[in-house]
Amino acid sequence: MALIVQKYGGTSVANVERIKAVAERVARTVREGNNLIVVVSAMAGETDKLIQFAQQISLSPSDREMDMLLSSGERITSALTAMAIEAAGLKALALTGRQAGIITDTVHTKARIARISGERIKRAIEDGHVVVIAGFQGVTEGETDVTTLGRGGSDLSAVAVAAAVGADLCEIYTDVDGVYTTDPNIVSEARKLQKISYEEMLELASLGAKVLQTRSVEFAMKYKVPVVVRSSFNDNAGTLVVEEDSEMENVAVSGVAYDKNQAKLTLVNVPDRPGIAARLFDAIAASNVVVDMIVQNISSDGKSADISFTVPKTDSLRAREISEEIAKELGAERVDVREDISKVSIVGVGMRSHSGVASKMFQTLAAHNINIIMISTSEIKVSCVIDLKYTELAVRVLHDVFGLAG
Amino acid sequence: MALIVQKYGGTSVANVERIKAVAERVARTVREGNNLIVVVSAMAGETDKLIQFAQQISLSPSDREMDMLLSSGERITSALTAMAIEAAGLKALALTGRQAGIITDTVHTKARIARISGERIKRAIEDGHVVVIAGFQGVTEGETDVTTLGRGGSDLSAVAVAAAVGADLCEIYTDVDGVYTTDPNIVSEARKLQKISYEEMLELASLGAKVLQTRSVEFAMKYKVPVVVRSSFNDNAGTLVVEEDSEMENVAVSGVAYDKNQAKLTLVNVPDRPGIAARLFDAIAASNVVVDMIVQNISSDGKSADISFTVPKTDSLRAREISEEIAKELGAERVDVREDISKVSIVGVGMRSHSGVASKMFQTLAAHNINIIMISTSEIKVSCVIDLKYTELAVRVLHDVFGLAG
Repeated sequence: MALIVQKYGGTSVANVERIKAVAERVARTVREGNNLIVVVSAMAGETDKLIQFAQQISLSPSDREMDMLLSSGERITSALTAMAIEAAGLKALALTGRQAGIITDTVHTKARIARISGERIKRAIEDGHVVVIAGFQGVTEGETDVTTLGRGGSDLSAVAVAAAVGADLCEIYTDVDGVYTTDPNIVSEARKLQKISYEEMLELASLGAKVLQTRSVEFAMKYKVPVVVRSSFNDNAGTLVVEEDSEMENVAVSGVAYDKNQAKLTLVNVPDRPGIAARLFDAIAASNVVVDMIVQNISSDGKSADISFTVPKTDSLRAREISEEIAKELGAERVDVREDISKVSIVGVGMRSHSGVASKMFQTLAAHNINIIMISTSEIKVSCVIDLKYTELAVRVLHDVFGLAG
Repeated sequence: MALIVQKYGGTSVANVERIKAVAERVARTVREGNNLIVVVSAMAGETDKLIQFAQQISLSPSDREMDMLLSSGERITSALTAMAIEAAGLKALALTGRQAGIITDTVHTKARIARISGERIKRAIEDGHVVVIAGFQGVTEGETDVTTLGRGGSDLSAVAVAAAVGADLCEIYTDVDGVYTTDPNIVSEARKLQKISYEEMLELASLGAKVLQTRSVEFAMKYKVPVVVRSSFNDNAGTLVVEEDSEMENVAVSGVAYDKNQAKLTLVNVPDRPGIAARLFDAIAASNVVVDMIVQNISSDGKSADISFTVPKTDSLRAREISEEIAKELGAERVDVREDISKVSIVGVGMRSHSGVASKMFQTLAAHNINIIMISTSEIKVSCVIDLKYTELAVRVLHDVFGLAG
């Protein structure tokens, strides 16, 4: 008898038929002898519809009111899903984030979970209920205001609840079968991974493989919650996200990711003084733009430098404005912006013990005449910024050279 | 400087444009020097859409989950309306029923308000906010579960909040200009009333003139909240619902109402023993069917009686089943059911001091060959059940004979 958390994303609860299918899967899981907590997203399209309403009404709707608005979608699904589960012959109880005891900080639209008081969840489970929790939302301390956890926040709700109640497993149901070695739309031989480590998943999530929300993976890693990513549209086994094991280390590269939402900014000919990088990136951070890669080249005479960095394409305008201000202040020549780039990355915990992985990547790209614009590495990742038009080619040849096909 | 509660119904917040129009009216009211609390319904059609989802999912969705589901519609409108008011340059704060401190009993889908802790509302008003409250909903003691107040419950939210904060006025915005002497669709000369007493409004509301929810009128009467019914689609003065005054008493009849949702059941030839009526109506009440009029005729030999009563047409099947059981038990001959009937009523506080009003009604109907099937009276109302097909004719001639035209 296990305690399982199942999270169903927007496409898995997109309409009445899909919600009934969820109830059937829930009933099956219960009949197999498990206790169950279900976390649901808003019906697909519902959140976007509400955002559209807000945008039509106000150029800058307040974050607090946005949270009140957007949290409604998940409440609706939680109630409907509880009804469907009861119609399938089980006892069910729908809980809002507040009722589930999900307490967050007060940063509306991207709140962080402070703690979860799982009392009511546990009581309901003991009473034989399937608990259905509205994902993506919490409430501030003192139960004052409703908050939301940011895009993809229902994944985080599920993992956090699983950690709080000590669940044996957290299943994330979505519209793909699991985590693949790369995007099957680009490489038809892409293979579904049976197992992947938290760290690798974290790199993949933040690199643009949109299967799991990044913060939910961090949370799962921190509290060692075993997570399965699988499809609600079939019964295929998914991908298990767990702690690293020796088997994983035998493989140098687990996956190839890419991210087309990248822009590169360069401050050209910045007079080289201590503190210039700090001045620039403090200002950018202050405007909530997340900087990814940073490269600094000192000129041969040592008197000036070029500073390049990447930001999400959606933030490039803001980053440019700030950079041009700072460039003037620092006496830089100009700011160049390139949006026709992408980032291609290889990920694998095996890199720690396998040498030559990075150089193999560089050689492979070179062999196909793909110019590398920037490089960044971590213990388990190598990322290269390249020309946007070579993205698919790069992904294919890297997937091939690291032997990732089935 | 007055404190005003404005309630906007579903058609008044039906879409983004209507919500912006509400914000403009709110801004105007504030600029005129008033403090403002706004209570909103769900966008027109939204609640029905959610009910449809629930019905497609379950034959008997749990009341608790229905409340979680249906309360979402008003939350959405409250957030959007607050955004629109802020976009109009004012400070606004959206509050759910729970956040507004509306505490109810635990009878889901038709909860009664137990008390309102208006603390947060008052604080927000003092801080210069327009408070926007999600209507139709409350929360059980201890803030455990969300409840709803039944159809039309947003009227009750508005009146109850007005009473709790001691508002000077409660304006109910809808898609009609106010309360009319009768249905303008039947009598084109129907006149809008400037003023009407709580008691008359109560009779009209329960008689099927669907301008104000019955319980909200009871509440307004109990706490002496002055209510105005008016249209959000124009600036016409509405109808003021207040305590009876001498001016009102000068008019014998204020309005003519009708109700086509009536069915009449008759237990024929019931052996006359003490307690038969109690036995019958206990059983019917136990099944939550509301009985309106009751007539009992003893036969000339005093040995048997016919018992007739009316129920809403929607409940006639259930009432018939129960009646047939009881008829068998009591030894009655049979149960007759008629659904081709309606109830036409005249209402007016002036009846107390004017004699001959009832007989004038009977004579008028007789003069037009309209047979009276049942009669029921109160201090300020006379109702007659007649053949359904004469409804419009009866309303017209009564409206005329009591001089209600403009």
